[in-house]
Amino acid sequence: MNALDKLGLATALAKARKSYQEGGVPIGAALVYHGTTPDTSNAVVLGCSHNQRFQKSSPTLHAEIATLEDAGRLKAAVYRKSTMYTTLSPCIMCTGAILLYKIPRVVIGENENWVGGEELLKQNGVEVIVVDDAECKDLMKRFIKEKPEEWNEDIGE
Amino acid sequence: MNALDKLGLATALAKARKSYQEGGVPIGAALVYHGTTPDTSNAVVLGCSHNQRFQKSSPTLHAEIATLEDAGRLKAAVYRKSTMYTTLSPCIMCTGAILLYKIPRVVIGENENWVGGEELLKQNGVEVIVVDDAECKDLMKRFIKEKPEEWNEDIGE
Ligand SMILES: [Ca+2]
Ligand SMILES: [Ca+2]
Ligand SMILES: [Zn+2]
Ligand SMILES: [Zn+2]
Repeated sequence: MNALDKLGLATALAKARKSYQEGGVPIGAALVYHGTTPDTSNAVVLGCSHNQRFQKSSPTLHAEIATLEDAGRLKAAVYRKSTMYTTLSPCIMCTGAILLYKIPRVVIGENENWVGGEELLKQNGVEVIVVDDAECKDLMKRFIKEKPEEWNEDIGE
Repeated sequence: MNALDKLGLATALAKARKSYQEGGVPIGAALVYHGTTPDTSNAVVLGCSHNQRFQKSSPTLHAEIATLEDAGRLKAAVYRKSTMYTTLSPCIMCTGAILLYKIPRVVIGENENWVGGEELLKQNGVEVIVVDDAECKDLMKRFIKEKPEEWNEDIGE
């Protein structure tokens, strides 16, 4: 992992930890602009947030959607030179949001606890990097074990 | 169109008109529970709303997402016996949200001004009905002509 991806994933993970402390779904995300080359020179964290299902009683504020909201209205060109970081493989809704805004690159903390729309991302030319991060895995595994019904609700099961 | 679909689409269209009057993107939606058979006996409008890009400066509150928010947290079984009504063909993000919650039926006012993720819905077994409604078409056509940049922003272009 390069310095940009380390920073982006750490930022997402900090939000996931915060959500866990609040009793929420511990998934975090960050949208980072970096221009044509994905490195730290000129990088800007445009938004970062976490799943808000329990904190805001929201069925659609998954980490990635909440992060796009946190970033606000951006020009199309900005999304296209940014990376979405997320601690867990994005669900089909969040996959759709990434495709809507043509975000070209997605870095995923882990896909061991759950696999979302990664294949659809790849089919549409999005670069998908799975880090297999131990802390992302542990945090999510703990939550699924502690609150299986809450987790099922979040994935429509 | 049966009485349920007439009511559902009219509810979505009322929200689209309201959004237009507010200077916003005139796309409305409604989520209607109906149980196993899609008819008006036992039907409940669970939520209805419109695109909130300009009203709430939101990049993710498309009509369908705003409607899922308006409906709040529901049990998985409720989504699975409901229909999503929307005045315009749903984008890939909203398509993903419909797939996440396994909403089995989508009624679309029109897909002449724009086509979204209808094929992906069908591939996943969702029943898709395109009404080709004149008022939905006129309202959207007028908006795209009056505010082309705002429309492009909403579809990530
Ligand atoms: Ca933030
Ligand atoms: Ca409403
Ligand atoms: Zn999601
Ligand atoms: Zn949409």
